[in-house]
Parts: sequence; structure tokens; C-alpha cells
Amino acid sequence: MHFSTVQRILGLLLMLFSITMLPPLLISLLFRDAALLPFAASFFAILLAGLLLWLPVRGDRHELRTRDGFLIVVLFWTVLGLAGAVPLVLSEQPRISFTDAAFESLSGLTTTGATVLTGIEALPESIRFYRQQLQWFGGMGIIVLAVAILPMLGVGGMQLYRAEMPGPVKDSKLTPRIGETAKALWYIYLSLTVACALAYWVAGMSWFDAVGHSFSTVAIGGYSTYDASIGHFNSPLIEMICVVFLVISGINFAMHFFAWRRRSLSHYLKDTEVRWFIGILFIVGSVVTATLITTGHHGGWGDTLHHAIFQTVSIGTTAGFTTTDFDSWPLYLPLLLIMTAFVGGCAASTAGGIKVVRFVLLLKQGYREVIRLIHPQAQVLVKLGQRAVDERVIDAVWGFFAAYIALFALMVLLLMGTGLDQVTAFSAVAATITNLGPGLGVVAENYGDISSFAKWVLMFAMLLGRLEVFTLLVLLTPAFWRR
Amino acid sequence: MHFSTVQRILGLLLMLFSITMLPPLLISLLFRDAALLPFAASFFAILLAGLLLWLPVRGDRHELRTRDGFLIVVLFWTVLGLAGAVPLVLSEQPRISFTDAAFESLSGLTTTGATVLTGIEALPESIRFYRQQLQWFGGMGIIVLAVAILPMLGVGGMQLYRAEMPGPVKDSKLTPRIGETAKALWYIYLSLTVACALAYWVAGMSWFDAVGHSFSTVAIGGYSTYDASIGHFNSPLIEMICVVFLVISGINFAMHFFAWRRRSLSHYLKDTEVRWFIGILFIVGSVVTATLITTGHHGGWGDTLHHAIFQTVSIGTTAGFTTTDFDSWPLYLPLLLIMTAFVGGCAASTAGGIKVVRFVLLLKQGYREVIRLIHPQAQVLVKLGQRAVDERVIDAVWGFFAAYIALFALMVLLLMGTGLDQVTAFSAVAATITNLGPGLGVVAENYGDISSFAKWVLMFAMLLGRLEVFTLLVLLTPAFWRR
Ligand SMILES: [K+]
Ligand SMILES: [K+]
Repeated sequence: MHFSTVQRILGLLLMLFSITMLPPLLISLLFRDAALLPFAASFFAILLAGLLLWLPVRGDRHELRTRDGFLIVVLFWTVLGLAGAVPLVLSEQPRISFTDAAFESLSGLTTTGATVLTGIEALPESIRFYRQQLQWFGGMGIIVLAVAILPMLGVGGMQLYRAEMPGPVKDSKLTPRIGETAKALWYIYLSLTVACALAYWVAGMSWFDAVGHSFSTVAIGGYSTYDASIGHFNSPLIEMICVVFLVISGINFAMHFFAWRRRSLSHYLKDTEVRWFIGILFIVGSVVTATLITTGHHGGWGDTLHHAIFQTVSIGTTAGFTTTDFDSWPLYLPLLLIMTAFVGGCAASTAGGIKVVRFVLLLKQGYREVIRLIHPQAQVLVKLGQRAVDERVIDAVWGFFAAYIALFALMVLLLMGTGLDQVTAFSAVAATITNLGPGLGVVAENYGDISSFAKWVLMFAMLLGRLEVFTLLVLLTPAFWRR
Repeated sequence: MHFSTVQRILGLLLMLFSITMLPPLLISLLFRDAALLPFAASFFAILLAGLLLWLPVRGDRHELRTRDGFLIVVLFWTVLGLAGAVPLVLSEQPRISFTDAAFESLSGLTTTGATVLTGIEALPESIRFYRQQLQWFGGMGIIVLAVAILPMLGVGGMQLYRAEMPGPVKDSKLTPRIGETAKALWYIYLSLTVACALAYWVAGMSWFDAVGHSFSTVAIGGYSTYDASIGHFNSPLIEMICVVFLVISGINFAMHFFAWRRRSLSHYLKDTEVRWFIGILFIVGSVVTATLITTGHHGGWGDTLHHAIFQTVSIGTTAGFTTTDFDSWPLYLPLLLIMTAFVGGCAASTAGGIKVVRFVLLLKQGYREVIRLIHPQAQVLVKLGQRAVDERVIDAVWGFFAAYIALFALMVLLLMGTGLDQVTAFSAVAATITNLGPGLGVVAENYGDISSFAKWVLMFAMLLGRLEVFTLLVLLTPAFWRR
């Protein structure tokens, strides 16, 4: 391990991150709200912290290796998550504990979107903007992580995508072309955001709300500048704009990268993962609609249809925006939506969950076992499109799945240990490990009422989910630190 | 497929099964209770049904193949499960529907032990005996299935044990030595039952209760001749006898077979699965004890300790006997016990769950993935004891696990569709797919109050669990029936 190099990079990241305090600071000036000082103080504090980390080791230029990669990625999310809490702690509004501030910041940055706040519309505009912005930068970080870094680290079967990207990520060393890939992804992400913000604005949002919600839409984050989330606008048009941009943002950004480079769209429909992604949303949406109509929960077709489509896509892509109290939907619907969030979006998108491609590989592997029982001598390959999937990738996906389930179960027990009921504990861990956001039961509205211990467990769950479990898990093994 | 051979074997099985109506018939004579006629009628009806199946194809002597094996195993459990319902339907006491009778019979035969009945002590002695006896024969069937048949079919990684058995099961053809193995297993099972019944009798049970509970103990079934289960006797001595025989019955019967052949005991402690099995029960038992003491739920140490040990072993081995209302235990305890049942007992025992050996393989595979991330070039083998486990076995275990989870989720949604709450639906499917028995919420006491549809779903879950998922699943694929 090259700790000095890790320290240098972390210092640089913190200094860069301090710059993210400036847009809210401008908003604060513009709206003359009460959070100017907190953001100014945070800017200087984080800049200074970064500088102090960077200065002693600024000359260090070791080549980074895989292990350093794991450490940097985990530190990136934890340290920036904590640094992001600074203005929330300093601000008078909201007046929240350090735990709550850390929860809100990490939930934003991991694009989970679970909030401890109520009365969001009464907060200073700069704070409201800052929460949305946290999600946007988080989403950007996730894409770079998922497209450029995790495939090289080989986490959870994501080496599947190692050779997928046209050019940039084929290298075996960690640093050289991440910059180039990141730049292209940045343009795509920015263009999507601008398009989304414009669409929201045309549909009737103020520019403040339009930009804010475009941030949390393309990041599939789910934060809103209102307690009532997208439901505040009471506009099916805005809901459908949200749906479209959520689906786009839930698709592998390597596909968008390809579209960008080759000026082509046909590859979207040829991609197995995209087809499954759309197919799952379509099937779940149909079941939701049919059940709501049958039970007459929303009355007629008009209200039912837009709520059904919106909530299916919002929960299914793990955005977590709400237009209605889906927690009180009848029968299996709340659980079905949470389960759809477990599948989540495509790999290398801003969506959470176990990812569609892993789900498809698990299904295909399961079916292969059935065929092997019937034809014990047959050689059966698991294919994705035309390509046979390496056994090692399948092993890694299984490992990911088992670790996901095991840690999920453990955290549900821990939460029940704090006195929460089973439905709340189950849904809270589900909503954080999948980076979805809203849960059921006590945490259906917000996460303010649970204990501090429970909040830290859920923060761990957010990180686990966002870092694809193994990136974080590997740091907890003695083998990682040996030698 | 040799349907005529399958039909011949099924006919023979039914004729054999009709004989199991005779002991309850004797009990009915002895106690002069009201169920004499139902058992006599059932005997003749089932005998006749078997005869009618067997007669037309009695000359057929095709060698059985793997596919026939799957079909026979599934038909064995479904047809005997339904045949076992006949006396319950015919008897005036209890007066229950066909669905309830089928549920009770299949729950008995699969050693699930989930009951739809209340007021069991008021039922005719012959019916009370018959329920216990169903579990005993079911347990015997499971051992033969798990030791002699599933390893050859290669279901869920159980080919792991193909070469394990000293002699008998090494053959590749299905029929030749199953008889010999079955006979040895039968002696072991019978000896265990006799020892258990004697111990119960010495500890103060009547001979009727002692025999009845020995049946459901060695079968890890959980049926009792009383509504209050083992709690009826209010005797820590009886509870500890039960614990000892549950642990013995939860160990791989191939180990007992080995002990029987070689007159040796040391191999138990050398076995990885046995050590994990005991270890898990010990850890969970400690957590349960500590939590009960901390929360003061049962008052002092005296009551706490025997309830904690008994319920941990009873739920952990998937027996499902109760001495106390563990559903109302504080915090995570009910869920923790249900989760322990998911791990279950050793493979090729009468216990349910996913089985300790699979759990251990999943853990080791998960850990291997961590090591592979740190040392991408390393060749890491998954070992069980000194022996490397074949990759194909690991694949099969993963397939088993994923299918288990997916079907579990699907059935929970189906049950919630009937209007059950999440905790009840979750625990009901958990308690049946693991062949545990008692659930939480509405089904904590018994399964009488849920809808018929829900009962049939749960019967399917019992079969899935008992047939190690894939034996049943394979029959539902078109590929199985092709050609
Ligand atoms: K989210
Ligand atoms: K049982």
C-alpha cells in the first residue's frame, strides 16, 4: 500500500470538493438566505483540510495499484460524505445533530435520497440547492466509479465490462486513461442534466426547482426541494418527464458513451441488459396498474395510470421520488416495488440495486443448473447476447449476491435490536442498501425518528450498496492489510 | 420416460402406504375411539387405488433412468401426501375441508409440522397417533431420498455426497443398491426412535405420548399430541431429551451409517458440517440467552436458560416444537430464530432449511471472491475439510440458493395478495419452505385462519423445501418433458 499516494489523492479530492460549496454560496447571496456563513466556513475548512493532507506528500508520484484503488474508492465516499455534512452541521436551519447531518450528506452523495428532514420548503434556498447538488456530484462519481474503476478492480463481476468500453478502459493500470473516459462521461451527464432541467422548466417548474430536480433525476437520487417530492407539482407531464430521464439514467452509461462516439442508437435495443431493464419495468408496471384498478385504490384509470407508471419507474430505478403514499397501496404492492428496487437499474448507471445484468446472470445460471440436471453430460454456457460469460464473472456475481443477502439479513437484525418492527427494519435496510431512499412503516415518510445507532447502520448500508459490497468488504478482511 | 414403470412403482408405493393405516386402526380399537371406520375405509381405498395402478403394468421391468427418478420422487411426495389426507377427510373429528386435510397430511409427511388444527388433545387417539406417524414415515423417506437418491440425481450440489457413502451409493444406476442402503438407514432410524421413546417415557410421558413425540422428534417434524406442544409437559428434563435427539437427527445420516458400520464416533467431530451445525446452534443460543436475560423477558436465569436452549435447537434444527410463545420474544429474536431455520440442519438428515453444508460453501465461496479481489492471479480452491470441492458442486449450490430466494420472494408476494400482512406472509413461507412449521403473526399458533389459496401455496413451499427445490423445479420446465 502506498499510503502517501493515497493521502495525496485524498487531499486533492477534498480541495476539489471544497469548490462544491461555492454554488450554494452564490445561491445564498442571490436569495439573501441565512446560510451564507455556513457555506463560506465550510469552503475554507474543507479546503484547508485538503491542503493539510496534500502538502506533506505533494511530491509523491507512485503508480497506483489495485489495493490502493480499493482504499481510495472507499475513502472517497466516506470522507466526502463526512465533509459534505459540514455545512449542514454549521447551518442554523436545519438545526440537526452531527449524525443527522452525516446521514443526510451520505444519503445525498450515494444518491440514496433517504432524508431525516421535514419542512424542506422552509429551509434556506442554499441548503435546498445543496442537497440536490450533493446528489448530482454523487451520481457523477458513481458513473466514473462504475464505468472506469470497478471493472478494473473486478468487483462483483464487473470485469464483465472490462473489454466493453471502446478504448479507454482496456488498460490494466489504474490511472492512465481514467481522465479521458471521465471527461466524455461528464459531457454526457451534463447534457442529460441540461436537457432534463429545460424539460422541467418548460413543464412549469421554476428554474430553481427545475435545476434542483434535474440534479436528483439524472443522479437517480430522489431528493426534492419539497416534502411532497414530485407530488408537490401535481403534474402528470412533469411526472412523465421524470420517468423518461430516470429510464435514460438507469441505462449503462457505457451505452450512452457508445451512442456519443458512434452517433448510433440501435445498440440500445440489441443490449440484453437494456431489454431486461425495460421489460421488468413494463411487467411490474402492468401488475401495479392491474392491482390498483382491481382494488379501486385510486378510483378510475386517470389517476391510477400516472401514479402506477411513475411509482414503478421511480422505485424500480431506485430513484425514490414519490407522488403518492405508495406505502399504503394495497396487498403486495409496497413489497413488490421494494423487490423491484432490489433488481435496480443497469450496471454503470446512476441506479442502485443489485443491477439488472447480475439478476439476468443469476437467472441464466439457475436455468443452466436445471438443464444440467436433465442432461448431466451437456456443456452449457451462460451467454449474454452472443457472448459466453466467463465462469469467473459468474462466480463473482454469486459472491456478490450471497454477501448482499447475508449483510442485508445482519443489518435487519441489528435494526430490530434498536426496537424497530420487522417491516420498518426490512424496508429501511432494503431502501438504503439498494440506494432507493424511502422505506415502509416508520421510515415511509422520513428517517428522522429512528435511533442514531440505526442511522449509522443505514449509512453503512448505503455505502455497501453504492460500493457494490465487495469494495468495502475487502477492506474489512485481514488479508487486505497483510504485507 | 418410462411412464409404465413409474406407474408400477407408484402403485406399489400406494399399496405399501395403505399398510400405514393399520397401526392407527389398532390404536382406535385399543382406545375404542371414533375413528375406526375412517382408517379401515382408508386402508381399503388406498390399497385398491394402488392395486388398480399396479395391475395393468405389473410386468413392466424397465431400468430406471435419472428423469424417471425426478418424476417418481415428486409423485411419491404429492400422491402420498394426498393419500394421507384420506382418513382426515373421512373422520368426523376433526371435521375439516379437503384443503385442510391435505395441508395437515403434507405438512406431516414433509416433516414441516405446520398444523391447521386446534384442540388436538380432544381428537380421537388414533388421529393423534396418525399425525405423529405421518411425520415418522416422512422422516424415513427424506433420509432415503437425501442419502441414496438426490446425490445420484445431482440436485442442489448433493452430488457432493455421491462418493461419500462407504459402498452402497457409489453406483451410477438408480436401483441396484438403494435397498441395501435403505435397510441400514432404517435400522439406525428405528434405533434412534426407540431410544428417544424410552427416554421420554422414563422422563414421565405416557407410552402414547412418548412414542408419538419420539416419532416427531427423530423426524424433526414438530407435530405434538397437544396444542401446547412440548410446553404441555412443563418439564426441562423432557425438553433436554428432545434437544439431544433433535441434534442427533439433524446430523447427516451418512455419518450415523458410518458410525454403525465402523463402530466409530471420532468422525463426527472431524466433520466440517457437524462442527458448523453445532457452532451455529451454540452462537445463536448464546445470543438468545443474552438477549432474554438483558431484557428480563423470562425473569431470572432458571426459566430463561431452558427456554433459550430448547427454542434455539427446536427452531434452528427446523423441528418447530415450542415451549413458550417465542413469537412474542423481544427485538430481533423471532426473526433471528427464523433465519437460523433457513440455515437448518445437516444435509441428509431429517432437518430442513438450505442445509449447513450449503451455507458453509456459500460462505467459503464468498470469502474466495474477496481473496480473488486482493490477489487476482491466485488460484483459490474451496475446500471442505481436506478435500477441494468441485466447481460444478459450487455452481449447483449457487443455483439452489438463488432459486430458493427467488421462489421465496414470489410466494411471499402471492400470500400478501390474499391479504396477509408482510410479517405473516414472510414467516409463513419461511416456515414451510424450510420445513420448520410455526410462523409469526397470524400463523404463530396455527395455519387455520388463512385462505385456501394461501394453504395450497404453502403446501407447494413445503414440497419445494423437502425436495430441495430443483427436484420439483425441473419438472416444471419444458426441457424435462421434451423427446
Ligand atoms: K435513490
Ligand atoms: K418441522
